[in-house]
Amino acid sequence: MRLGTPVPEGGAADENHEAIYSSNFSDSSVFPADSPREAFDVVVIGGGVIGLAIAWRAALRGLDVAVADPAPATGASHAAAGMLAPVSEVTYTEEPLLRLGLDSLARWPAFAAELSQATGADLDLRHDGTLDVAFSSDDMAALGELAAFLDKLGLAVERLTGRECRRLEPMLAPSVRGGLLVAGDAWVDPRRVARALLAALRAAGVPLLRARVTEIDASGGEVRGVRLAAADGEDRTVAAERVVLAAGAWAGSIAGPPADVLPPVRPVKGQIMRLRSATPLLRHCVRGSVHGSPVYLVPRGDGELVVGATQEELGFDTSVTAGGLWELLRDARELVPGITELEVVDVVAGLRPGTPDNLPVIGPSALPGLYLATGHHRGGVLLCPLTAELVANLLTGERPDPAFPCSPDRFKDSKS
Amino acid sequence: MRLGTPVPEGGAADENHEAIYSSNFSDSSVFPADSPREAFDVVVIGGGVIGLAIAWRAALRGLDVAVADPAPATGASHAAAGMLAPVSEVTYTEEPLLRLGLDSLARWPAFAAELSQATGADLDLRHDGTLDVAFSSDDMAALGELAAFLDKLGLAVERLTGRECRRLEPMLAPSVRGGLLVAGDAWVDPRRVARALLAALRAAGVPLLRARVTEIDASGGEVRGVRLAAADGEDRTVAAERVVLAAGAWAGSIAGPPADVLPPVRPVKGQIMRLRSATPLLRHCVRGSVHGSPVYLVPRGDGELVVGATQEELGFDTSVTAGGLWELLRDARELVPGITELEVVDVVAGLRPGTPDNLPVIGPSALPGLYLATGHHRGGVLLCPLTAELVANLLTGERPDPAFPCSPDRFKDSKS
Repeated sequence: MRLGTPVPEGGAADENHEAIYSSNFSDSSVFPADSPREAFDVVVIGGGVIGLAIAWRAALRGLDVAVADPAPATGASHAAAGMLAPVSEVTYTEEPLLRLGLDSLARWPAFAAELSQATGADLDLRHDGTLDVAFSSDDMAALGELAAFLDKLGLAVERLTGRECRRLEPMLAPSVRGGLLVAGDAWVDPRRVARALLAALRAAGVPLLRARVTEIDASGGEVRGVRLAAADGEDRTVAAERVVLAAGAWAGSIAGPPADVLPPVRPVKGQIMRLRSATPLLRHCVRGSVHGSPVYLVPRGDGELVVGATQEELGFDTSVTAGGLWELLRDARELVPGITELEVVDVVAGLRPGTPDNLPVIGPSALPGLYLATGHHRGGVLLCPLTAELVANLLTGERPDPAFPCSPDRFKDSKS
Repeated sequence: MRLGTPVPEGGAADENHEAIYSSNFSDSSVFPADSPREAFDVVVIGGGVIGLAIAWRAALRGLDVAVADPAPATGASHAAAGMLAPVSEVTYTEEPLLRLGLDSLARWPAFAAELSQATGADLDLRHDGTLDVAFSSDDMAALGELAAFLDKLGLAVERLTGRECRRLEPMLAPSVRGGLLVAGDAWVDPRRVARALLAALRAAGVPLLRARVTEIDASGGEVRGVRLAAADGEDRTVAAERVVLAAGAWAGSIAGPPADVLPPVRPVKGQIMRLRSATPLLRHCVRGSVHGSPVYLVPRGDGELVVGATQEELGFDTSVTAGGLWELLRDARELVPGITELEVVDVVAGLRPGTPDNLPVIGPSALPGLYLATGHHRGGVLLCPLTAELVANLLTGERPDPAFPCSPDRFKDSKS
């Protein structure tokens, strides 16, 4: 049973950190080894699913790559529910994000299969669809508009009555009036994905530099390497002509590059809870809006039920609060009253990297040698295969697509 | 940040146990040493505040005593809020319990002073009173009846309007209609008390046998000692002509003595939450009844705010549940809306030892050499000084008072 976010080495003191941390990786043999080498072709800053996947794909292309992170897979990837739900997550103004999500969702089966084959890991990837439910006539109208929008785009959704919803999910509240079944939606366990990526890196011989990057060396107007602050306080420099900045919400504040080169990401705090029952309570991912506050329930095969998530703009605060817990429990209980019987096994807060236009920032920056891969906000797990492939393409010489909506240079005008 | 009850050695597996456990006793030098000795005059079974205090008082009387517990101070004493509130806790039918509580409350200042003097510990004992508040006219009527009852007994209470309540505690909900200020109520931090008692035992040279007692040896119709199951699996027997059974909710199920000798205790589960703010949110202990469900908030000097507690009859289950958390948060929020901003630092479930008549079971059992000290239900911390003194008196030869309402033999007729 765990409460709170794992703390990276060198971060704030937490006497539980070692236990929490090791419990996520009880098989610590998955960790790639550190390396005393002083130069790599590419250093990826950030060991969340985005950074780990980029390093993995880059290594498979033959690049000499290392990942730098004092505590990989303990940030947003550790908190994330792992919904692969481009359709359910979309709003009308976000067709580019929907397209990206659909593209990446289509890549997930092959990505997961290759990762499982490389590591033997079961990622608990499921394609059982999302059930979006409505309580009020306002909710019903909103679902109707979403359905019409998806129809227009040719995406399959099924309109259901309240009774049909409860036939699919008998534990749903009797007050559910109707819903949409988005059969194409899937989900995966991000903690398993991160662990498998670490194992894949180890198998591929990619080192893990377990240190915080304090600075990107950009002297002379181009990337020369990174400065690392090791846990033991011993600083060192690693040379690299190319650096991928995949540090999530922290990517906007790293020292070294000119300010207008860094991505305009901000931390969007999410508190998320993991419950457990002996047998799974739900078969679909269930979503709804309770008192205007969206909530989702993601079931796993082992009886875990993820309840998420708050959205709070509070800077880099990752505390679990009474109000956050209360909101999650109130909303989840409204959706599926039976959750009250479940054991609470884990509550954490993570920081999503938000951007001004809700699109990620993927591609070469204005600083030669610096590539950005952050700003994935609520979609980091979904967009992981696509992001990794795009960045690996760029690192192996492909030219960026000028029409790509996530290009870092789209913020140039607004910042200058 | 912690979630869940510490697990004793030899109990269910929990990867966080060591971290949780050590975090409660970051100064592990307070632990009394174990002992290879094979005989003691007295063995106390159970290292909660009751057992530890009995051993301490007995040692100060010159008795050769040891405490047996695989993980002292991790059960109900670890969960307890530490209210010393005989008046606020009372119901009309429970005048004997009220008298016991008042007696023990009067002993707390000297007990705490002596314990602090012996160990240097600050127990955070506070005498700032309880504010019992009412939301509805039913609540108001109930408080009025309580006040009349207390008046009749000559106990000081002050009737307050809603405005007067909020003048005392500005964070109270605007919907509070009135209240009672019970100035005599106090509270203490039970985790500090347990730690101080361990330190006092160490200073007094009382060994801590860190093993589970699997059986009381009662062959021949009298106590001869206890059988211990050590964490390393090595069983051993320790001889003792007198054994004090202070194992809380587990006291009713220990092997060895005839069934009708064991106390009729049952586990009453309580889930309890610890929040924290930079500065204390409240100055008084605040209690109220929300939707018929009692809730209390106990502030500590360091900004900790204890929110308790559920009362559940579920056997020996100590899981933290979604429903338990939700109930605590809902009720606490109704009482003091501002708690939503506070960080959640700890949620645990403990098992109170309940008895059929809500009175503890203190005194010699029908089995020669076996003394009982359990069944304290919601009042273990309050009744700790009195219980320890009574049992130490018995162990040093005092004859039991035949009029004592907590005598073990009161259940004789109902069980035979």
